[in-house]
Amino acid sequence: MIKKIQAYLKKEQIDSAFLTSTENVTYTTGFRSDPHERWLAVYVPAEGEAILICPGMEVEDAGAAGWSGPIIGYSDTENPLQLLKENVQSFNSLAIEKNHLTVERLELLHEVFGDFKTYPAENFMNELRVIKSDDELKLLKKAAELADFAIETACSELTEGKTELDVLSKIEYELKKKGITEMSFSTMVLTGENASSPHGTPGDTTIKKGDLVLFDLGVVYKGYCSDITRTVAFGEISNKQQEIYETVLKAELTALEMVKPGVKASQLDKAARKVIEDAGYGDYFPHRLGHGLGLNVHEFPSITSESDFVLEEGMTFTIEPGIYVPKVAGVRIEDDVLVTKDGYETLTKFPKTLQTIKV
Amino acid sequence: MIKKIQAYLKKEQIDSAFLTSTENVTYTTGFRSDPHERWLAVYVPAEGEAILICPGMEVEDAGAAGWSGPIIGYSDTENPLQLLKENVQSFNSLAIEKNHLTVERLELLHEVFGDFKTYPAENFMNELRVIKSDDELKLLKKAAELADFAIETACSELTEGKTELDVLSKIEYELKKKGITEMSFSTMVLTGENASSPHGTPGDTTIKKGDLVLFDLGVVYKGYCSDITRTVAFGEISNKQQEIYETVLKAELTALEMVKPGVKASQLDKAARKVIEDAGYGDYFPHRLGHGLGLNVHEFPSITSESDFVLEEGMTFTIEPGIYVPKVAGVRIEDDVLVTKDGYETLTKFPKTLQTIKV
Repeated sequence: MIKKIQAYLKKEQIDSAFLTSTENVTYTTGFRSDPHERWLAVYVPAEGEAILICPGMEVEDAGAAGWSGPIIGYSDTENPLQLLKENVQSFNSLAIEKNHLTVERLELLHEVFGDFKTYPAENFMNELRVIKSDDELKLLKKAAELADFAIETACSELTEGKTELDVLSKIEYELKKKGITEMSFSTMVLTGENASSPHGTPGDTTIKKGDLVLFDLGVVYKGYCSDITRTVAFGEISNKQQEIYETVLKAELTALEMVKPGVKASQLDKAARKVIEDAGYGDYFPHRLGHGLGLNVHEFPSITSESDFVLEEGMTFTIEPGIYVPKVAGVRIEDDVLVTKDGYETLTKFPKTLQTIKV
Repeated sequence: MIKKIQAYLKKEQIDSAFLTSTENVTYTTGFRSDPHERWLAVYVPAEGEAILICPGMEVEDAGAAGWSGPIIGYSDTENPLQLLKENVQSFNSLAIEKNHLTVERLELLHEVFGDFKTYPAENFMNELRVIKSDDELKLLKKAAELADFAIETACSELTEGKTELDVLSKIEYELKKKGITEMSFSTMVLTGENASSPHGTPGDTTIKKGDLVLFDLGVVYKGYCSDITRTVAFGEISNKQQEIYETVLKAELTALEMVKPGVKASQLDKAARKVIEDAGYGDYFPHRLGHGLGLNVHEFPSITSESDFVLEEGMTFTIEPGIYVPKVAGVRIEDDVLVTKDGYETLTKFPKTLQTIKV
C-alpha cells in the first residue's frame, strides 16, 4: 500500500504525504484507532520508510495490529510534529487530506515545517481504496452478514404497540451481544407516515397494522461498514403501498442486474430512476442511487445520474432507490454490492420480495 | 447570543464570523442538526442580521427549533457559499472555527469570497459558552440524571458470568427505551484487570467475584452531554483494592470541596493529585483531573495542573481522578460539577461511597 502511494507521489512529483483520517491510517498501516483530539497520522515520503505517529500509549497496539515500520509515539507534553521533524527530510510539497485536516492543524504543520505547497491526498487515496482486496472483502461480507442479522432481529421484534425506539434499541442490543459496539450511522426504524420523509428520525410512534416499516442500518466490523435498507409490511397493506413497494423493488433489481465491469455509475442511476419515473413516482425519488462503501460508510464513488465513473471488478457500493409519498408510504430497498469479474454479488442477502409480518 | 458575538467582532475589528460546528450552530441558533457531508453554518456579520445556512429540507426544522432570522436553504445542486455571497457584503476578515473547518472548505470559501484574513472563532466562542445559561443547565441536569439512571441500571445488571459487553448493551438498551439515541462517547464497562488500563475497551471478559467494575458513560440530551464514572465492587474485594478506592474518593471529594468562584483550575488538579501522591499512587494517575462539559463532552476549559483558568459561577466541568495499578485495580470516580455562587453542585448524584454488589 505504502509503495503504491509512493509511486503516485513520484509520478506527481510530490515530496511526501501526510494522512490523518482514521480510515486512511487503517488502510495504510492496519492499525485502527480513534485518537479523539490527539494526532494520529502516517507520514509517507516519496522515497524511504513511512512513519506512523500515534499517542505513546498506543504504540504497542499498533505493533500488534501488524505495523512493522517505524513509529513515533508521543506523550501529552510532546509535540508530535516536532518529533517527526527530527526524523525526516524537509519537504517542499505535501499531500494532505484536505477534507479531513483542519485549518488549525495545517497551520501547526506550517509552524513546524515552514512553507510548503499542499495537494489533495484524496485523489490517490480514493483511487487506491476503490478496489477492495480479498482481505477487505472478507470484512465487508462479515459486516453485511451482521446487517442481515439485524434486519432479521428487527422483523422478529415487530408487534403491535411497540414503538420505533423499542425496536431500534432491541436491534442494537442484539448486535452489542455479538460484539458490535459501533454502527455505521444512526439506526433508522420508521413506521407508517414517518417513513414517508427521507430524513425522518425514530421516536415514540407505535407500529400499527397496515404500516410499512422501514429499517436502515449498518455495522462497523473491524473498521469496515455495511449499510442495508429493508421495508416490510406489518399486516395487510393497501394496493397503493404494494404498488410503491413493487416499483422500488423493480428499480433496485433493474440497476443491480446491470452491474458489471465497464458500466458507468450514471447508467445504474438512470435505469433505476426511469423505472420509478415510468410508474409515475419520479418526483418522489429525491436522492442519488447509491454510494461507495468500505472503511467509510459513504465513500468514493458516488452513484448519481451525472457520474461517468466506470465500474471495475472489486468495487463495492450501495444501490438504494426509494419512493417517499407524504402521508402514503416510504419505501427504500438497499443492498451492498460487489462488482465481480462478469457481474455482481450482493453482500447483503436478506430477502427483498415483500415480507409481511403477521399481526 | 448573536449580539455578543457581534460585540466581540467589533471590538477585535473582524468583519464577520462563520461558524460551522454542530455545537456552535446549536448554540447560536437553537437549531441542532448533523449535516454529514453537507454545509451547516451561521454567518454573523459584525453589523446586521446573522444568516443560517442549511440543507433545503431542514429549513422547516430550523424554524421550528426557534430560529427566526434569515435562512439560506440549498439543494444538492446549489453552492451554498454562492447563495450566501449574493446575500451579504464582502468582507476582509473572517473568524472561522479553525479546529473544525477543513482545509478544503477554507479553500472553497476563498474561491467564492476571494482573499480575506482568518481568525480563530474558538477564542470568543469558548468564552461565551463557558458560562451556562439557566436553559442550558436544565438540559445538563437532565443529561446527568440519565447518566445516574444508567449507572443504576449497570449495577442491577451485574451477575456472575455476564460479560462487559452484556452489561454495556443492557445499559444502552434501557437508555434507548427512554429516547436516548446518542451517547456522549463509547460506553465503558471494564472489569478486574481490564479496568487497570486507562484506555481499555469492553469485550468478552466475564465479571468475577472480587472484581472492581468501572463504568464510564454519558448521554446526549437535546445536544447537551453528561459524563459519569463510577467503580463498584462485585462481591468482597481485597484490602488493597479498598485502599485504592478510598484514595480516589478522597481525591475527588478534596477537589470538589474546593470548587467555588475565584479558584483556579490548577488548584483543583493539584489538590486531588496531592492526595493520590501522598497515598503513594502518584505514578498511577496519568491524566488530567477533568474537562469542561456542555454541548461537547470535552470542551473548554481543561482542568490540569498547569491551568490558570479561574472558575466562575455557571461553569460546568468534570472532576475525575483515577488510579490504575496494572494487574491490581483500576478505579476512577467522576462527577459533573456546576460552580454555584458560593460553592458547587454535582449534577451527577449516584452514591460514591463504595457500592458492593452482592454476588
